[in-house]
Amino acid sequence: MSAKTNPGNFFEDFRLGQTIVHATPRTITEGDVALYTSLYGSRFALTSSTPFAQSLGLERAPIDSLLVFHIVFGKTVPDISLNAIANLGYAGGRFGAVVYPGDTLSTTSKVIGLRQNKDGKTGVVYVHSVGVNQWDEVVLEYIRWVMVRKRDPNAPAPETVVPDLPDSVPVTDLTVPYTVSAANYNLAHAGSNYLWDDYEVGEKIDHVDGVTIEEAEHMQATRLYQNTARVHFNLHVEREGRFGRRIVYGGHIISLARSLSFNGLANALSIAAINSGRHTNPSFAGDTIYAWSEILAKMAIPGRTDIGALRVRTVATKDRPCHDFPYRDAEGNYDPAVVLDFDYTVLMPRRG
Amino acid sequence: MSAKTNPGNFFEDFRLGQTIVHATPRTITEGDVALYTSLYGSRFALTSSTPFAQSLGLERAPIDSLLVFHIVFGKTVPDISLNAIANLGYAGGRFGAVVYPGDTLSTTSKVIGLRQNKDGKTGVVYVHSVGVNQWDEVVLEYIRWVMVRKRDPNAPAPETVVPDLPDSVPVTDLTVPYTVSAANYNLAHAGSNYLWDDYEVGEKIDHVDGVTIEEAEHMQATRLYQNTARVHFNLHVEREGRFGRRIVYGGHIISLARSLSFNGLANALSIAAINSGRHTNPSFAGDTIYAWSEILAKMAIPGRTDIGALRVRTVATKDRPCHDFPYRDAEGNYDPAVVLDFDYTVLMPRRG
Amino acid sequence: MSAKTNPGNFFEDFRLGQTIVHATPRTITEGDVALYTSLYGSRFALTSSTPFAQSLGLERAPIDSLLVFHIVFGKTVPDISLNAIANLGYAGGRFGAVVYPGDTLSTTSKVIGLRQNKDGKTGVVYVHSVGVNQWDEVVLEYIRWVMVRKRDPNAPAPETVVPDLPDSVPVTDLTVPYTVSAANYNLAHAGSNYLWDDYEVGEKIDHVDGVTIEEAEHMQATRLYQNTARVHFNLHVEREGRFGRRIVYGGHIISLARSLSFNGLANALSIAAINSGRHTNPSFAGDTIYAWSEILAKMAIPGRTDIGALRVRTVATKDRPCHDFPYRDAEGNYDPAVVLDFDYTVLMPRRG
Repeated sequence: MSAKTNPGNFFEDFRLGQTIVHATPRTITEGDVALYTSLYGSRFALTSSTPFAQSLGLERAPIDSLLVFHIVFGKTVPDISLNAIANLGYAGGRFGAVVYPGDTLSTTSKVIGLRQNKDGKTGVVYVHSVGVNQWDEVVLEYIRWVMVRKRDPNAPAPETVVPDLPDSVPVTDLTVPYTVSAANYNLAHAGSNYLWDDYEVGEKIDHVDGVTIEEAEHMQATRLYQNTARVHFNLHVEREGRFGRRIVYGGHIISLARSLSFNGLANALSIAAINSGRHTNPSFAGDTIYAWSEILAKMAIPGRTDIGALRVRTVATKDRPCHDFPYRDAEGNYDPAVVLDFDYTVLMPRRG
Repeated sequence: MSAKTNPGNFFEDFRLGQTIVHATPRTITEGDVALYTSLYGSRFALTSSTPFAQSLGLERAPIDSLLVFHIVFGKTVPDISLNAIANLGYAGGRFGAVVYPGDTLSTTSKVIGLRQNKDGKTGVVYVHSVGVNQWDEVVLEYIRWVMVRKRDPNAPAPETVVPDLPDSVPVTDLTVPYTVSAANYNLAHAGSNYLWDDYEVGEKIDHVDGVTIEEAEHMQATRLYQNTARVHFNLHVEREGRFGRRIVYGGHIISLARSLSFNGLANALSIAAINSGRHTNPSFAGDTIYAWSEILAKMAIPGRTDIGALRVRTVATKDRPCHDFPYRDAEGNYDPAVVLDFDYTVLMPRRG
Repeated sequence: MSAKTNPGNFFEDFRLGQTIVHATPRTITEGDVALYTSLYGSRFALTSSTPFAQSLGLERAPIDSLLVFHIVFGKTVPDISLNAIANLGYAGGRFGAVVYPGDTLSTTSKVIGLRQNKDGKTGVVYVHSVGVNQWDEVVLEYIRWVMVRKRDPNAPAPETVVPDLPDSVPVTDLTVPYTVSAANYNLAHAGSNYLWDDYEVGEKIDHVDGVTIEEAEHMQATRLYQNTARVHFNLHVEREGRFGRRIVYGGHIISLARSLSFNGLANALSIAAINSGRHTNPSFAGDTIYAWSEILAKMAIPGRTDIGALRVRTVATKDRPCHDFPYRDAEGNYDPAVVLDFDYTVLMPRRG
């Protein structure tokens, strides 16, 4: 292999405290927004309509939080997870400055934990990744941990350091970048009469619809995010692999589930935090994704009476409708149809 | 089902005279235009080139009439046709204010007719839908009628009211938003030397080329329009359904046929009216769409010598070339290969 | 066939010295850029990030050279190659004025060579095509030759004229539209520490990754370029043809290979010239494309110490990794896995 070809980092290449500046900065445009709409069909009014966003005090329709996530995340792949075996989880995801078309995002990651596995062949790397815009304002930060192969099984194990992982992002850490006035908020345009006040902790919502994934779609999405993880693109190699086919980028499932959740959570205008996320099973082209949500917590935002926060768990399944809310069994094992367990915090107008 | 999930309206939910404000307003951008080009390959110069559009007095390249149609239409689906069995027809479609990138469209529908079917299980709903821009200018209005299921077969039948359906949009009702001067009109750039004067009533044109539909394409298109009709997206359910697979959104066929029609109608710069439309058979991924057109009428526009109107019927087929113009048999039954019978009015420069 | 339908030109329709103004002018936008990213996943910093481009003195992120090529080229298809049997080659491709979102491109071709084949049924047409922007500045010119069918085998053969084809574009003819200062050039953002100084003539680089092609992708790409070549779109016809399926537009392979080449050539910020190109085998949906490159020449640019030129051959294969650099055998015959032999010149920052 040419020395000029990036082989990705192996477990022994990571150092505690190391900072990695990722390539390639990316200017987000209205073109990306259109692609995102064509891939997921999102209908949340805030990101669909500039006049709607302006009625909430924003300068124009912002970029969807999850599109920001995918782009910030995609940059980390060539350095962090090119040799990953498993994407183990996310935590502490916090959205900051609103991103608009024309903004340019770049990402830096810091290694905050390392733990070699007992097999001596792999280890877990914990990184804190920070996405910033062209003014160096943080647009998103999150912790992610992945299992990475060692290049050399004989490389010595580093000191084990496992960071504290926050259970969830505190409501006081949420950025709430817009305001709602009951007089101006158009419920019909938003698509539902149900506001923050109408949801109850423990309430479960079946999002009813299902959407089937095509190879062209998940690859177009993943490339849009400049995510280079090989398992998504190369049938010639994956045909001989564990699943015999390409694996869908887990983030594609998150966006599909969020889009399905409009039917039941239409006023969940934006995602303010990602508390935790797990891809519990791989998805493939041909799978039909369904989703349901549970309200985990209902949080007033200090100093705000116009908008409240809901902590939501959205579970996505494949080829399995969600009217009976499939999740985990008594031992805590996931239903085999569950592909995503996503715990996040949304902002929603209050009745005021 | 959670009360917060939208089950769609059933036949007995509609009331004569009822007005429905649809979610979600949608800001159209250059990104949508690029997606539209990638999905249909449209080559009409007016919508492809800003200098060309400016040479006709527009501020820039406008949004394709059919993209406007799909977006205005898409908003009505969750309220009007989520429980529809059949999309029976369109009439009286009239384009108004030119739509540019940056404009935001929203749609309102009024129920103008109701007729329960004899089986007592379904009924026909007639709506007049109006799409407006951010200044409340009408960009498109049309009448559509659909057959919708009843939730409760015992719900009483409403009084039958069937609206008058116009046979076509009168030439005096057409909006002609640009002007042509023979000196400035670039025939080579437009792609054909044939102008309004050169077409004859009764003339038939085979558009020759065929284009095969892929699942990813029609789903991306339909999501771009935020159209949520379930039959287009869910293989897991449709596999067990009538056709065993997903059905292509009928509007996707309209746009494919319009794009094919460039070869023979290149100077038909824009669609000014949709007189009537029928999806005579479903289309599926793997089908190859062909099209032919007949000139139904040639109409001078009052007060205009630069531009004339042509009433055109474009017929689309699947897996069936159109050199012999397949249409209907002596009893009026459609050829089984015909998937679309679309009667519309285009604007075309005159020789002056 | 209606006289109004374009049958394309046949060999005997071309005249030496003839100039053809092609339809349709095309305004390129940020939407096209997003589509291009979603189709190829390109990560070169210059075209991905406006601040990065501005740090090199450009007003904003320019349009990728290859997207310019595809759009300029696409316009020529209905006039030049609708009846082509084979796309034989390119030469003398030279990029000129930088293209930005909002620019409008149109193309004119001049017939510079004609040679009837011995079979009397076909001939080779050589054209010099020039793409210009809205100010008539040349953005790209190139020579292309194609084998075209005769309509009438009895049509007389024209005088044979074969133009001189340049082996490569001289370094003095390259447009170098940006400047680099070592102080400002962000290597981490660009994605590699290897600059012009670090490459050696004869050096070979395996780009490692492979990407599988889907029907929806290559058709969306080809339509985005308004390229109407029939073999890419019509399964109904191609099913009965030589390969039994649709053929992927050769330019799609060029863009896939260029995108793969980021891994090893990340600082090759833009393509300044296309010296020659051959599509040595057809590609189809389902094929996985790999690529490798060889540095053919290293050229200082007169008067410039900040940027140098590299002449590169990038070879793409299908279903065949490139660690051993598959190319030609001792007789000069291409390895059957090779689909593209592309010789071009890139601009790359120097160590200064």
